[in-house]
Amino acid sequence: MKYLLLALCVAVVAVVAQQPLSVVPYPQTVQMGSGSVTVCPSKFSVTTNSQSTVFAVALKRYQSLFFPFGNGSQSGCVGVTVSITVSSDDENLFLGVDESYTLLTNGQTNTITSNTIYGAMRAIETLKQIIQYNLNSQTYGLVQVKIYDEPRFPWRGFMVDTARHFLPKNAIFHIIDALGYNKFNTLHLHLVDAQSFPVESNTYPNLTNAAFGPGATFSHQDLQEIVAYAQTYGIRVVPEFDIPGHSASWGVGYPDLVANCPAYAANINNIALDVSNPNTYTFLQNFFNEMATIFPDQYFHTGGDEVVTGCWAQDPNMQSWMNKMHFSTIDALTYFEHQLSNMVTAMNKTKMIWNDPFDYGCTLSTDQLVQVWLTGSLPNVLNAGFKAIVSFAWYFDKQIPDGNTHYEWQDTWQDFYNADPYNGITNNSENILGGEGTMFAEQISHVNWDVRVWPRAIGLAERLWSEQSVNSVPLALPRIGAFSCDMSRRGILSGPLFTDYCPLPEDLTLSPLKPVMEIPKDIMQKLINRQ
Amino acid sequence: MKYLLLALCVAVVAVVAQQPLSVVPYPQTVQMGSGSVTVCPSKFSVTTNSQSTVFAVALKRYQSLFFPFGNGSQSGCVGVTVSITVSSDDENLFLGVDESYTLLTNGQTNTITSNTIYGAMRAIETLKQIIQYNLNSQTYGLVQVKIYDEPRFPWRGFMVDTARHFLPKNAIFHIIDALGYNKFNTLHLHLVDAQSFPVESNTYPNLTNAAFGPGATFSHQDLQEIVAYAQTYGIRVVPEFDIPGHSASWGVGYPDLVANCPAYAANINNIALDVSNPNTYTFLQNFFNEMATIFPDQYFHTGGDEVVTGCWAQDPNMQSWMNKMHFSTIDALTYFEHQLSNMVTAMNKTKMIWNDPFDYGCTLSTDQLVQVWLTGSLPNVLNAGFKAIVSFAWYFDKQIPDGNTHYEWQDTWQDFYNADPYNGITNNSENILGGEGTMFAEQISHVNWDVRVWPRAIGLAERLWSEQSVNSVPLALPRIGAFSCDMSRRGILSGPLFTDYCPLPEDLTLSPLKPVMEIPKDIMQKLINRQ
Repeated sequence: MKYLLLALCVAVVAVVAQQPLSVVPYPQTVQMGSGSVTVCPSKFSVTTNSQSTVFAVALKRYQSLFFPFGNGSQSGCVGVTVSITVSSDDENLFLGVDESYTLLTNGQTNTITSNTIYGAMRAIETLKQIIQYNLNSQTYGLVQVKIYDEPRFPWRGFMVDTARHFLPKNAIFHIIDALGYNKFNTLHLHLVDAQSFPVESNTYPNLTNAAFGPGATFSHQDLQEIVAYAQTYGIRVVPEFDIPGHSASWGVGYPDLVANCPAYAANINNIALDVSNPNTYTFLQNFFNEMATIFPDQYFHTGGDEVVTGCWAQDPNMQSWMNKMHFSTIDALTYFEHQLSNMVTAMNKTKMIWNDPFDYGCTLSTDQLVQVWLTGSLPNVLNAGFKAIVSFAWYFDKQIPDGNTHYEWQDTWQDFYNADPYNGITNNSENILGGEGTMFAEQISHVNWDVRVWPRAIGLAERLWSEQSVNSVPLALPRIGAFSCDMSRRGILSGPLFTDYCPLPEDLTLSPLKPVMEIPKDIMQKLINRQ
Repeated sequence: MKYLLLALCVAVVAVVAQQPLSVVPYPQTVQMGSGSVTVCPSKFSVTTNSQSTVFAVALKRYQSLFFPFGNGSQSGCVGVTVSITVSSDDENLFLGVDESYTLLTNGQTNTITSNTIYGAMRAIETLKQIIQYNLNSQTYGLVQVKIYDEPRFPWRGFMVDTARHFLPKNAIFHIIDALGYNKFNTLHLHLVDAQSFPVESNTYPNLTNAAFGPGATFSHQDLQEIVAYAQTYGIRVVPEFDIPGHSASWGVGYPDLVANCPAYAANINNIALDVSNPNTYTFLQNFFNEMATIFPDQYFHTGGDEVVTGCWAQDPNMQSWMNKMHFSTIDALTYFEHQLSNMVTAMNKTKMIWNDPFDYGCTLSTDQLVQVWLTGSLPNVLNAGFKAIVSFAWYFDKQIPDGNTHYEWQDTWQDFYNADPYNGITNNSENILGGEGTMFAEQISHVNWDVRVWPRAIGLAERLWSEQSVNSVPLALPRIGAFSCDMSRRGILSGPLFTDYCPLPEDLTLSPLKPVMEIPKDIMQKLINRQ
């Protein structure tokens, strides 16, 4: 019923020699050799000098992934070793941690060297991608290549919304698997919102009165496991507690926390915290201190988006307080954000917010990180001296993410790929730390998360890791298509971008409800205890 | 980061009393009683006077579906019986088969009556939907209601493309499960296309030289099992062999079949059959006769879309033949379609084609059924006296299916819902037999089929089954959302349409690779032998 895809594929084949390696995200430097070997899965071994438990989990996981079709035909195969040398076993994971690596494949003897275990994790993923299964010969080939690689941006994130639909822990593990394969290094958890409050608190147990149900909450243990699981992929977890807007759920168990504005109540997203009440600040400080014991990351996201200040203007307490303080609603928000900044600083953390308070004209200290979701804001945020991460180009829920339209919905991957964080930026681009895709979840649960995000987010992964000059859609297409197939063979529901053939292993568990490898309980506890 | 969905939900709640029953597609007549019972799963029994093997399989399947969370709390529950009385055990499945039923729930004793086993199947699906699990009480409730139901259109189809990506048999079973839950009754298999030929032929074994690989073919047994599996949902299977365009794959094993037009070869979709060669007709007749032994349905789809006549004009054999016959390329297509009509008639079947040959101006006999994929063609096709089915409004691969745009991609379900086959039709609307959604598969495999189609196709299912007046998006939204959750609890990857909570059973297999219930081999063979 229509279709010119083949013409595109032909064009791709004609120029693909410029990117000889089918790896995503494309590495910084690739020197191809001319040789290759056929790998015997039964004679494949990876050794390392690392004593890290975190790295041991990562390595064990990949050992279950290298050979999706088992031993294959073994025709003409040889024993292959990979020796991984890590300079430091420091497991500390932070923004800017060294993720560089060198991977040298040279036949039977191959080496990976890196400064950190996280660099070594990136190298193993690259190694996984270059051990390629040949459907016809049923063998695994390994080409000769020297790769030096490091990321372009230190913040390569994805935002997962657990408030519009509850995502069980195992589903989040599954999501982390896929993010890890794509060398994402930041999981932003949009944990609570107007619609639900799934985070259990010991200090304020009634907060989960706003959970969707008894099974729809995260215990401390659950969240610690998510942080630990993510660490085994070198992924930091940044929690977001979005205030003072989008805060109706806080008021379900603690009604005094939120402003009273009946005229705005028809839309639950309108309800804001009552920031006139000193108890609100005590509450937040206590709650944040509790959350800080769970989330070790330096960054702590307090939202700040879409505050409906009209709600404040209607609340009697807020009104009299603002009158007393000679505050406009924007002054009130400025005051609130300033108090929040003090709280987060007192926790020795760095505050992170959406661009909205800046856009409203609040005076904000520039030591906070601004996540920009409105296209026009980025130059202003940068000019004002803030560090920033970009999200506006990568809204995975939208029908038309970037103003461009395509015949097929899935081709919106190209928009995600084409959106460079530096596009249109003339000043202070060095203050762009990276970017984040967002999957707001009004129409998303763990049932459809994968297919709505993959393979489209592969384009984003490459945009944030690879050099700016790696930006050709025709060149990326065959690599991203091949990687999407590879991901599906690891259990991720990532579909095709063009007509091809991607048979799956017969014993594959293709379910969005399961991690690719369960971490045994004792190891998991060990990981949690080290944080 | 935006969102006004709740405002919409509130509006829905305000008027939802007009549709008191959460059933999709909405039945023709619903008389609610005031009572309800709590069902004990362990004391629930369904009896029937039917001796049909086909129906027995359907019934057994539903008995595994009624209680997704097992026995639940059993608090206050009672024994419940459902007695199904079928007037005839005739298993013959054909366009227009009686699908009507009456379902009377009245507490502990409930009845279903229908003229055919297929009506009874529709009734059981409705029964499944009205036995509703209450998350808080962990019990299954059954309301008192009298339903009389029958479909608006006899042709309620979905087109599955097995040529752009190969779909394994089990994945097609899984797709049929979901279609059956939605009371679709026609599975249109777009079996072959330019890109691949997955159908094995005894007569012409080289056709599968154009399969994607050795594992990517359908044996006769596979196809017979698909037909049998579909029959246990009352779903007819209509095969499509799309000729004379989109036919490059026929030429891989049998090069003489296709025209030689090098200037057009850059796009594989340009290649057409050589219709000047008498051997082509012999080949097609033999092949179709073989296929007719597999597909018992009255309808046989021969495609006919997007013939690139320029390819013919370049082929020397075609040129000399057209000169000899004083044929334009359109005359050549007319001739070919006429020969095809004779072939299909000789098989005692009814030919079905896409609207293209009609649009090109070919003179065609009106005894063929026209599937309309181009918006403007429908009135002309009807005015010319053809029977038709509508597809143009339901292209599930498109980013913007119907010209309307939404913030969220998934809201395109509304376009599918709003597209009534009678829209803009003033004459001969009685010749519209129904419609078909299409999922062309350039970017679709079994990995992402479910999420790309569901829950959006629920809107189409209701459009084709329910009365034309059942057309309110706000009224449909909560029902379709609830049914999507129900579908996911049966293993279909159908996500949410709004913020809600749909916990899944812990032991659920949520995989697009598996049917909800395997039919034992001996029963399957019995089903095949009856066709």
